Amino acid sequence: MTSSSAYVIGVDLGATTIKSGIVDEEGRILDQVVVDAMALSGPRAVIRQIVLSIRQLFERHGRAGCRGIGIGSPGVVASSDGAVLYPPNFADWKRVRVADAVRKTFRLPVAIENDANCAAIAEAHFGSGKRYNDFLFVIWGTGVGGGVIIDRKIYRGPYGGAGEIGHVAVDHNGPPCNCGSRGCIESYIGQRYLSDRTRRAVAEAAKRGERSAIGQLVKGNLAKIEPAVISNAALRGDRLAIGILTEAGTLLGCALASVVNVLEIRTVIIGGGISAVPDFVFEAIRETVRSRVLTPHRAGIRVLRAKLGNGAGIIGAASLIYFR
Amino acid sequence: MTSSSAYVIGVDLGATTIKSGIVDEEGRILDQVVVDAMALSGPRAVIRQIVLSIRQLFERHGRAGCRGIGIGSPGVVASSDGAVLYPPNFADWKRVRVADAVRKTFRLPVAIENDANCAAIAEAHFGSGKRYNDFLFVIWGTGVGGGVIIDRKIYRGPYGGAGEIGHVAVDHNGPPCNCGSRGCIESYIGQRYLSDRTRRAVAEAAKRGERSAIGQLVKGNLAKIEPAVISNAALRGDRLAIGILTEAGTLLGCALASVVNVLEIRTVIIGGGISAVPDFVFEAIRETVRSRVLTPHRAGIRVLRAKLGNGAGIIGAASLIYFR
Repeated sequence: MTSSSAYVIGVDLGATTIKSGIVDEEGRILDQVVVDAMALSGPRAVIRQIVLSIRQLFERHGRAGCRGIGIGSPGVVASSDGAVLYPPNFADWKRVRVADAVRKTFRLPVAIENDANCAAIAEAHFGSGKRYNDFLFVIWGTGVGGGVIIDRKIYRGPYGGAGEIGHVAVDHNGPPCNCGSRGCIESYIGQRYLSDRTRRAVAEAAKRGERSAIGQLVKGNLAKIEPAVISNAALRGDRLAIGILTEAGTLLGCALASVVNVLEIRTVIIGGGISAVPDFVFEAIRETVRSRVLTPHRAGIRVLRAKLGNGAGIIGAASLIYFR
Repeated sequence: MTSSSAYVIGVDLGATTIKSGIVDEEGRILDQVVVDAMALSGPRAVIRQIVLSIRQLFERHGRAGCRGIGIGSPGVVASSDGAVLYPPNFADWKRVRVADAVRKTFRLPVAIENDANCAAIAEAHFGSGKRYNDFLFVIWGTGVGGGVIIDRKIYRGPYGGAGEIGHVAVDHNGPPCNCGSRGCIESYIGQRYLSDRTRRAVAEAAKRGERSAIGQLVKGNLAKIEPAVISNAALRGDRLAIGILTEAGTLLGCALASVVNVLEIRTVIIGGGISAVPDFVFEAIRETVRSRVLTPHRAGIRVLRAKLGNGAGIIGAASLIYFR
């Protein structure tokens, strides 16, 4: 396949794989390659892999039509010089100017942004956020990430690290969070925490002689419990699963209400792997935000599912070039 | 006294009194009048009192030098048309275009903004915020209000009601808050809540036969307990008072850490009546924010006292004209 018109390459850098795609002006991914990120081999190896993935796309589509390359990266992307700071699960990495390296290699415009921010930007231009000037974006997955769209632009903060909605506390005495604090919403609903809590609840229920659809779905191997299993059990009417997911939604709603009160942004868009939870969870989030925010905000609260799924990273990265 | 050079009038509208002042370009209040707000007599009466206070200043200083009038008002000030919406403790008030009425009367430029935002703006231009492009402003008093300064400008939110830092939750199961939610920081450290909690603690201590400097300071009349008394007792080394104020600082720090993580704004300025607490309370706030925010923010955290005290409202209102 060769794209005759101009396109942009979006690169979604992750700790496991690098996904790079050809993105057209309508935000569609026309082609995509996936390479190993080699995150444990240090920054040079990672940059080499990014370059490799782009070369693969050029081989298939020619580079003449390429208007530029956008990169979404984990970690903080410094406002000052675009350096990527301390991305989690990358070895020997402090402060690396990834975009500069890619720019030198290809002599094309290259832009870089934090990956959660990229996904928020993608939803703003091509997804559920199209109709809203301002929204909070939440990535509910392994961790809980986020982005803040103000007046159709990403709010980066003074140094580029804003939007960490996952580290809004819902209980000052809550469980320890990976970040070093306590009671952050991530420490209740992030994948590992949610799965661990469910495992304990299923084990306790079993001790009381109660059967749970969750236990049946993983055939008794509780190590296999993960959010998709909990959602699945909830859809089968399992009370334990419904309870855990409703609680998760309620707690997320509480964290979001705090942010709504500070920013007066009334639209929330939720993506990420765990956002595939059943509708009743979104209803719990919505109801909690509505009941907790200051009265003038209540009627305007909207909590929506993200639209772009796994492609949001690539599309958002490409958007950095399309909407410079 | 007659000001020979140009000046601006700042009006600080409160539910009890209206304070209006002549403010010079350096943010100094050169003269000030105070009139009854007549908040229980409806919007017309309130506007009449605002006009009266401005006339009194004109009589003393002449109106030739007046470049305009800024008004700080409780309630939400709508972004769309500057209408003041539902200010608490004002009777028969829904949506009133106060600025328009004053503009028509005097045919001068008139600007209006929420009172907490005005105080934040005052600190940004003339107070503790002068050196910072971005800061969170907290008014710690009867309630807990706030304002967000981004890039030296107030962040108003899409509808004008942003900055309600007092309604960030620190415990989703916490005490009921005046706003209808639970566990907002205001419901722990606002004047009434703080005084009530102290009253109960003093009464319980008395039952155990423990004496507290707080009880002595109010001569046993616990109804007289208020934050200044608690601060006073703490300065005398009273353990109960120190404990209560340290806890208040810790909880405020927790709420602020959530906001810092979302906005990446690392400077916090705290004003309002209760901010006259001893230094150890500021230390508790600072330490809590530092220990709870994401690692990259820690070293940059600053928690400062506001500088302008009671005058912040008038000065901030005048700033609306000076820095249009």
